[in-house]
Amino acid sequence: MIGKEQIAGVYRKIQDEICLGLEAIDGTAAFEEEQWNRIGGGGGRSRIIQNGNILEKGGVNFSEVYGKLPEQIKKSFGVTEDDFFATGVSIVIHPNHPLVPIIHMNIRYFELNDEIRWFGGGIDLTPHYVDVEDAIYFHTHLKAVCDSFSNDFYLHFKSWADDYFFIRHRKETRGIGGIFYDRLTEEKAGIHMDDIFAFSVALGRLFVPLYGELVNRHRHKPYSDQQKQWQFLRRSRYVEFNLVYDAGTRFGLETDGRTESILMSMPPQANWAYNYLPETNSDEAKTLSLLRKGIDWL
Amino acid sequence: MIGKEQIAGVYRKIQDEICLGLEAIDGTAAFEEEQWNRIGGGGGRSRIIQNGNILEKGGVNFSEVYGKLPEQIKKSFGVTEDDFFATGVSIVIHPNHPLVPIIHMNIRYFELNDEIRWFGGGIDLTPHYVDVEDAIYFHTHLKAVCDSFSNDFYLHFKSWADDYFFIRHRKETRGIGGIFYDRLTEEKAGIHMDDIFAFSVALGRLFVPLYGELVNRHRHKPYSDQQKQWQFLRRSRYVEFNLVYDAGTRFGLETDGRTESILMSMPPQANWAYNYLPETNSDEAKTLSLLRKGIDWL
Repeated sequence: MIGKEQIAGVYRKIQDEICLGLEAIDGTAAFEEEQWNRIGGGGGRSRIIQNGNILEKGGVNFSEVYGKLPEQIKKSFGVTEDDFFATGVSIVIHPNHPLVPIIHMNIRYFELNDEIRWFGGGIDLTPHYVDVEDAIYFHTHLKAVCDSFSNDFYLHFKSWADDYFFIRHRKETRGIGGIFYDRLTEEKAGIHMDDIFAFSVALGRLFVPLYGELVNRHRHKPYSDQQKQWQFLRRSRYVEFNLVYDAGTRFGLETDGRTESILMSMPPQANWAYNYLPETNSDEAKTLSLLRKGIDWL
Repeated sequence: MIGKEQIAGVYRKIQDEICLGLEAIDGTAAFEEEQWNRIGGGGGRSRIIQNGNILEKGGVNFSEVYGKLPEQIKKSFGVTEDDFFATGVSIVIHPNHPLVPIIHMNIRYFELNDEIRWFGGGIDLTPHYVDVEDAIYFHTHLKAVCDSFSNDFYLHFKSWADDYFFIRHRKETRGIGGIFYDRLTEEKAGIHMDDIFAFSVALGRLFVPLYGELVNRHRHKPYSDQQKQWQFLRRSRYVEFNLVYDAGTRFGLETDGRTESILMSMPPQANWAYNYLPETNSDEAKTLSLLRKGIDWL
């Protein structure tokens, strides 16, 4: 059975691969790295890219932390064990082009001991303008990876993403969803732990080709000032989701994580306008009509 | 003893006065009003000003709501009563000029019955650039109003504001503080309920002359692109405070309040830059050094 150091080692390598892949997609910008240590044990490598050809602001973070679990988290997990280990890769990319979508991916592993251990993760797409062909493409590839591990994964994790990436106070999904899973064990997944790990690695390796294709489909299209303004408004919804609801963000801020690494998900610029309503039948209105749960993109 | 309808009536009038006063300060823009009803009972008047001479985006909201208290809130208040009544005025103003500060004020009243009733409120200033003379001016006037009701108020409420308007994950205060108080009863205040009410009214009436002076001190000063960029970065901290910590915002979003009214506090534009550090000895660095608790401005 695969061990935690091995998992962390592979995730670290995935961070390397994804950064190289994103730099190739961008063509100009390079990641800057900061290594940090956690007082309680472990640390991470934060890698940030800014002001690229197409990648305006993004982060690809790796962390491997361990130590004693805070009481409140033990309680919320329903466990009595003290020692934990957690590792993961987390990505958010904000492109400068309003027709290129925002993307997020996270794969993570958590263990308390040989019995209590699980994987979590997800990948979801937030287009400023929903393009149905893109949505089909994105979900088709997610389904293909899911299906190669279990026939139950895609539907289950797609519906989980719809529920998770939901901005309750706006009654809007964050974007066109994707997949999300948490606390996935052999028992729940119905597959071996090594295969759950392999599933997370497959998602990690899908990221660059998937996002590369979506970037390249749109990066050279012209766009208007109005479309740029709409992008800024959509980004403010992204801010709202991450600061109000995102479990990883809130957990990080509450447990004194490294603020700049946690908030790498914030966009370079976000705008708020009071009670903004797009014109009927506009592309913006069409996008809003597609930001809801339960759409079967396939 | 003053009744709830009378309190709501005076607060409604204060909203009118403040909107007129702010329009006069701005010189161009006018408030737009939206009236809304709450399904459980009551409603409010949201008034928003946008794209003014100096007031880029701001709101002055009045609400008067009543009905049945949700279970979770009864629990957090430690009460068993069901019927509540709440009224208040809430303001946030984002100026377009980086040398003019952001301001927030709130006065509110809550009651369950003749015995269980209290006032809350506060006013705090968030300069993009801390100006010590402004801070002294601001705190001097707050202290004068406090002192005319109780000699204990200013120190107590000033320290409460330092603790409340604190961005924990940044280890920064939101600005130069001000005063904050909550669940203020006769017993805690040491003055009659009518006088606690009069105190809130005095704060409401202080708002326009106080902010008018601060706006007029700086509105005609030239500023650089770099100062404008700094303003956008400071506004993103304001967003972080309001979405992560502000009790009113979180309460509103969690209890299905009117989202556009609650989030009127969001700035028109906010920027995030990874790990931004101002130059040593710059005005920006000086501002950061003054964003901490416990400064005695007087």
